[in-house]
Amino acid sequence: MTEPVMGSDSSALAHHIGEVALVDQHVHGCWLNAGDRQRFENAINEANTEPLADFDSGFDSQLGFAIRNRCAPVLGLPHHVDPQAYWERRSQFSEAELARLFLRAAAVSDWLVDTGIDGVADVTQLSQLSGGRAHEVVRLEQVAEQAARAPGDYASAFDEILRRRAATAVGTKSILAYRGGFDGDLTEPPASQVAEAASRWRDRGGTRLCDRVLLRFGLHQALRLGKPLQLHVGFGDRDCDLHKTNPLYLLDFLRQSGETPIVLLHCYPYEREAGYLAQAFNNVYLDGGLSVSYLGARAPAFIARLLELAPFRKILYSSDGFGPAELHFLGAALWRNGIHRVLRNFVNSGDWSETDAIRVVDLIARRNAARIYHVGAAGE
Amino acid sequence: MTEPVMGSDSSALAHHIGEVALVDQHVHGCWLNAGDRQRFENAINEANTEPLADFDSGFDSQLGFAIRNRCAPVLGLPHHVDPQAYWERRSQFSEAELARLFLRAAAVSDWLVDTGIDGVADVTQLSQLSGGRAHEVVRLEQVAEQAARAPGDYASAFDEILRRRAATAVGTKSILAYRGGFDGDLTEPPASQVAEAASRWRDRGGTRLCDRVLLRFGLHQALRLGKPLQLHVGFGDRDCDLHKTNPLYLLDFLRQSGETPIVLLHCYPYEREAGYLAQAFNNVYLDGGLSVSYLGARAPAFIARLLELAPFRKILYSSDGFGPAELHFLGAALWRNGIHRVLRNFVNSGDWSETDAIRVVDLIARRNAARIYHVGAAGE
Amino acid sequence: MTEPVMGSDSSALAHHIGEVALVDQHVHGCWLNAGDRQRFENAINEANTEPLADFDSGFDSQLGFAIRNRCAPVLGLPHHVDPQAYWERRSQFSEAELARLFLRAAAVSDWLVDTGIDGVADVTQLSQLSGGRAHEVVRLEQVAEQAARAPGDYASAFDEILRRRAATAVGTKSILAYRGGFDGDLTEPPASQVAEAASRWRDRGGTRLCDRVLLRFGLHQALRLGKPLQLHVGFGDRDCDLHKTNPLYLLDFLRQSGETPIVLLHCYPYEREAGYLAQAFNNVYLDGGLSVSYLGARAPAFIARLLELAPFRKILYSSDGFGPAELHFLGAALWRNGIHRVLRNFVNSGDWSETDAIRVVDLIARRNAARIYHVGAAGE
Repeated sequence: MTEPVMGSDSSALAHHIGEVALVDQHVHGCWLNAGDRQRFENAINEANTEPLADFDSGFDSQLGFAIRNRCAPVLGLPHHVDPQAYWERRSQFSEAELARLFLRAAAVSDWLVDTGIDGVADVTQLSQLSGGRAHEVVRLEQVAEQAARAPGDYASAFDEILRRRAATAVGTKSILAYRGGFDGDLTEPPASQVAEAASRWRDRGGTRLCDRVLLRFGLHQALRLGKPLQLHVGFGDRDCDLHKTNPLYLLDFLRQSGETPIVLLHCYPYEREAGYLAQAFNNVYLDGGLSVSYLGARAPAFIARLLELAPFRKILYSSDGFGPAELHFLGAALWRNGIHRVLRNFVNSGDWSETDAIRVVDLIARRNAARIYHVGAAGE
Repeated sequence: MTEPVMGSDSSALAHHIGEVALVDQHVHGCWLNAGDRQRFENAINEANTEPLADFDSGFDSQLGFAIRNRCAPVLGLPHHVDPQAYWERRSQFSEAELARLFLRAAAVSDWLVDTGIDGVADVTQLSQLSGGRAHEVVRLEQVAEQAARAPGDYASAFDEILRRRAATAVGTKSILAYRGGFDGDLTEPPASQVAEAASRWRDRGGTRLCDRVLLRFGLHQALRLGKPLQLHVGFGDRDCDLHKTNPLYLLDFLRQSGETPIVLLHCYPYEREAGYLAQAFNNVYLDGGLSVSYLGARAPAFIARLLELAPFRKILYSSDGFGPAELHFLGAALWRNGIHRVLRNFVNSGDWSETDAIRVVDLIARRNAARIYHVGAAGE
Repeated sequence: MTEPVMGSDSSALAHHIGEVALVDQHVHGCWLNAGDRQRFENAINEANTEPLADFDSGFDSQLGFAIRNRCAPVLGLPHHVDPQAYWERRSQFSEAELARLFLRAAAVSDWLVDTGIDGVADVTQLSQLSGGRAHEVVRLEQVAEQAARAPGDYASAFDEILRRRAATAVGTKSILAYRGGFDGDLTEPPASQVAEAASRWRDRGGTRLCDRVLLRFGLHQALRLGKPLQLHVGFGDRDCDLHKTNPLYLLDFLRQSGETPIVLLHCYPYEREAGYLAQAFNNVYLDGGLSVSYLGARAPAFIARLLELAPFRKILYSSDGFGPAELHFLGAALWRNGIHRVLRNFVNSGDWSETDAIRVVDLIARRNAARIYHVGAAGE
């Protein structure tokens, strides 16, 4: 870390939280091409899909305040620098230079990269820019689009592409949340239905998969593959019907999901429901992902709720960084700050021992992810 | 304020919170006619529509404790005075005298008055009693009832009445939450359906509008008008099906709502969902309204959640005071106390600067409301 | 209490919370027969119905940490003892000996025992082991199964069995949450439908009642009986569809429920919705039950949310202890710790007086339960 995030706490717990190398188990590429201030301000509003209104500013939010407070020092500026000064300073660097600064400041050893969004750094570039290892997470809806364009039987093509790509990847990811949500039948469709649905979809051009039969087919292929399956849950942009992404709608699917790890991402405002599922199913995991960055000063309260019903071996860390490299750093900085605030409180109240707190930090920061994704070098 | 609400905090932030004149952007009239203790105790239970049970007391609640703590000093009594002594002291004043004491103690410069409930002080009286400015908010379901009684075409009558009343009003309000909730189709109905529905409703007497076609018609007329449209969301009395007032059911409506500001009121227990919508749509705002008063000692925790995903230029203040003038005051007193508790914590933890905190107080206390309702004198 | 739970707080409030004898208004029997460590670890995971995965441990959870912290001293071990040492020490006692230690350490005067689960201590045994009074709560679905096996008309048999058993019981309990949840029609079915449904069910063997007609019949018989009716709400094992146990689905049922007290149990993650219902209906009550134990270090945050909209005369205490006697004790220990943390904060902030806080402790700890169940000796 570029500076202590734990204030004046010189305890072993604070030290450990500041030093532990993270596995960022769900992240996208950062920008590599230049852009204007409007792009930046829109990129720090997740939910809105339109340009911000004239009267508004992306800086006037918890995330905006967190950038001015925690990213400013990485660029050599004081805490709480004003938006204009931040923007001017940021503009003195290329996006690649910013990436090198912020990604390294995150102190992440392994990035698990969802490559489903183009136009940003790829897996190799993320590794080079950060100085860490990077691994691919294959987006199922992208595999489906590739299968739609492939010759021959859709199901065979999907299976072949998935297995080929997954051979060098650590997991899969679905954005079912953005394609109708979790409500409704999520059982495996019969082959005949898959063939018919694929035929219809190919006739329509085979872009932006919304067909529920094919979405369900993809999920069950991922279960069969056995590598961890990540699901976007809750908070995201307004294209998703947030109330249909309550993870409790996944109950029937989870009851039939076998042993493949299923990782619920972001989870706001359903983090307590997600924690329940992590307790209820041996193969269910969760992280706070995107939500931690966007909650800024309120992230500790959210992180505390992640630590309610979820067993401690089922909680992971991710930033969901995408676009501005600030987000790849802020996820880590706010998680370190938040977990410290929460666990310091548990220890001070006598509820937890400091030794236990340090062990739980390790589990969430990297050991749980290392176990299910088989990443991370021994001894780290 | 009649006394410092910030305890021993002598900071610029505490001073500013104590002094800032509020725009109470959603309020009703206070009582002017005398009533007994039973009326009072029932009035401080929002959700129950029946008389309180014999074994119960309206005072044994967070709101009751807040009245005894924060309203007592306004009447010259000590903090935490017992219910009987509070009631006896209160009984020495007329309701108009109580209104003058409590409304002035709220330090509100502008009251935005939903005139949809009769039998209480009207806009002019609220202004006179408080010494502040008062502006009307027109309730759409009342306009509908007026249109039902008007001669000729319902839609034309509704339009004419709405435009006439809105000429001197600052916004509109809908209680769709109490008339079936937000679930289901909220698109604009075709004229022929409106005419048919109006004819049926007029035949049935034209009272208590529950027809979804006419409710939808009213909403879209309000959008067309362009003045801010307030929607009751969440916590209210048990006539509403609380689970059907989850504001996420408004997603499709909001996606089509254009630029007319839409203000989500009260929001408990959906304040996090409402905050998401305020981030997702340039025209969506929220307040904590009624919930702040009813949460009493727990109001700071609620106010903190209002400050999660909602951009700071999209959050407003209101009391939703109705009936006992204590509520017009308590909304303000508990908001000042709560926002101080929350922002003091953000500043002390290093997450926010005090300068930023003071600016956010201004945005929520009055500047956001002044901008969208065009109220409040310059320089205040 | 075996040791102070209030840390260094020597106030009257802390003293009172430490000393007050509780009415545990919803509990099951504790184990009497020996078992291995796997049984124990599975028993401290509520939601999972399968054996814990090899990589997991029931100890790595808030409940597991709370056992190591708070139960260890009852067995003469230091706080935060490691799982292996805890298990070894625990194994030196029989389950009956553990029950005597933990039940007495809970300082409960009255246990209200749901006898719907076999294979654990019964009412009489709980009384003997704890040295307190024990009273039965009759599970309606068990009455239904008894009526299914009885000769003659089902409805008459149900009524006869319920009245006979209820003569010596203090209330009834339904697990409708586990039998399809609260969504849908909950009105009283006509006699002809009951007879038909009973006939069908008897033909299928009359076990595990899932028929909605018969479930509804049972609920309305319990309302007619007039003794408090407990409903499992929210958190439980994964056999229940958690999203169908949102208590807001009970609104129509509650609107027709008359004066019979209805007690919402556990409530996580719907404790705020349950609090609203307790304010909205004179006959609705709630507790935090099971959730308090499972939240461990996070229980204070949960208990604080229970104290939002619910009137203070409508909140109860329970442990929902079942199986390991640790749970009968931990419910009490964590509730005392949590209510102290929350109310100490209310008092320190000036929101509540200490006198009020002590009175609210009494209401929740025993007076509310004593009033509705007619238990507890005068003067306690």
